[in-house]
Amino acid sequence: MRWADGFIAVDWGTTNRRAYLLGSDGAQRDEMEDDQGILSVSPGQFHQAVQEIRARLGDLPLLMGGMIGSNRGWVEAPYVACPAGIADLAEHLRWIEGGRAAIVPGLSFAEGDAADVMRGEEVQILGAVAAGMIPADAAVLHPGTHNKWISVAGGRITSFRTIMTGELFSLLREHSILADLLKGEVDAGAEFDAGVAHGIANDDLVAELFSIRARFLLGKAERGASAAYASGLLIGSDVRVGLHEAGQGEIVVMGRPELTGLYARAVALAGREAREVDGEMAFLAGAREIAEQLQ
Amino acid sequence: MRWADGFIAVDWGTTNRRAYLLGSDGAQRDEMEDDQGILSVSPGQFHQAVQEIRARLGDLPLLMGGMIGSNRGWVEAPYVACPAGIADLAEHLRWIEGGRAAIVPGLSFAEGDAADVMRGEEVQILGAVAAGMIPADAAVLHPGTHNKWISVAGGRITSFRTIMTGELFSLLREHSILADLLKGEVDAGAEFDAGVAHGIANDDLVAELFSIRARFLLGKAERGASAAYASGLLIGSDVRVGLHEAGQGEIVVMGRPELTGLYARAVALAGREAREVDGEMAFLAGAREIAEQLQ
Repeated sequence: MRWADGFIAVDWGTTNRRAYLLGSDGAQRDEMEDDQGILSVSPGQFHQAVQEIRARLGDLPLLMGGMIGSNRGWVEAPYVACPAGIADLAEHLRWIEGGRAAIVPGLSFAEGDAADVMRGEEVQILGAVAAGMIPADAAVLHPGTHNKWISVAGGRITSFRTIMTGELFSLLREHSILADLLKGEVDAGAEFDAGVAHGIANDDLVAELFSIRARFLLGKAERGASAAYASGLLIGSDVRVGLHEAGQGEIVVMGRPELTGLYARAVALAGREAREVDGEMAFLAGAREIAEQLQ
Repeated sequence: MRWADGFIAVDWGTTNRRAYLLGSDGAQRDEMEDDQGILSVSPGQFHQAVQEIRARLGDLPLLMGGMIGSNRGWVEAPYVACPAGIADLAEHLRWIEGGRAAIVPGLSFAEGDAADVMRGEEVQILGAVAAGMIPADAAVLHPGTHNKWISVAGGRITSFRTIMTGELFSLLREHSILADLLKGEVDAGAEFDAGVAHGIANDDLVAELFSIRARFLLGKAERGASAAYASGLLIGSDVRVGLHEAGQGEIVVMGRPELTGLYARAVALAGREAREVDGEMAFLAGAREIAEQLQ
């Protein structure tokens, strides 16, 4: 391993970053998380932002994944085209700071009119494959601001599709006419299930969203039920679209547990088997595997 | 007619208001339009806001339709349940200012789980029926922030469904990750048509929206094409859902010409006949008809 004294793995997203100190044996020694996502860092201030991480976790090499490699991040790490495995990520690292830091490239998929991109999920998914957490052939669902449905074959990501469900829910919650109805907590109860059932069975999402407001105005629904129903509706609609191309086997749902729980429930309500995998564990597995491949 | 000296008809929406001076013969004598929609008027300031209209157009009775009758407007005019005709609107006017002003009620529709509400479109649609601009049995599409598909039978509105397409486009354009791609003008050209075609043929709206960004990032689409494609995609998806329940005949597309043109194009691309009706003319017809029914 190139980094004999260990290294810092950073999952650097749009609104948050999480950094992990990994020892030379790959074991996690320390970690930090804050709200210094790339949108909170001015261009030209990334070196400083990285020094904050080193001040906390140690003066070590950095391996960074996520939006830090986008055109709004520190330095752009060009997309690697699918199909791509973990060796492709290691081979196409974007090295900076004279070799003391590296950014993992995102992946692109293009076929006919289809086009898609990801940054961050690839480390988790290919890390999970490398660590044996998921099979080398798998259908993976990765919820987040931009939920992704990913096909993994022979240990490589072969295709994927993004459904911007999380962002749409945020837009509705913060800026839409439904905003005051969607402030409540979302948990996987009866209202969530009812929304999922509607979303799975119908293709009328943008109409059904307005019905949430109308039912409340007409006294047919309680205010408190709306957020969970809307979340279920969006996730059920997402699952309906995603399952079109997800094959017949188990669906791996990877990411933050509060989101994987909701999606796993929706997948189950669609009559399919779902297995949750913790995205943080998968990210660390991916970072370790990439580091091990460096000579 | 009760208002022998004429009256002022006001179409008072969320972000704009339009007021028309109608003579005792029903002819339009003058008009004004400004951005004093209900969200720009503080509670308690509506009397003052009305005096501005009278200062411009004359010290006359007012007949007001639209969001002015909502719980965020001046005085709430409770919904009238479908089926409802123009006589029901006249009968359930909410009188204020000691009878010098009246607010037209909105309509509600509820059947099983279905629930919907409208405020403003009812004056136009039932006015168009009364004036013979559209048949007494018709399928009407009324684009706007909240597009509506309306069934008219025997001269009454029997059911309707809202699809919040216009609001979704605004949310995406102002607040989403697609915002910088969607700033362009939307006209009904090849890119609009391509979006409509996708929306009519597919039920993957929330996924296809992200593809717009991915195609641009991967150099497969021009920045300038994105707004028209996205608009077409949203409208095509709307038309696909709305046509499910719109019967087999001609579709009347009523509203502002810049919107009815886009929707009529989409309806035609879906293989159905569309006829555009100017919403302003229909509103004036509705206001006249309601005024004539007052004793």
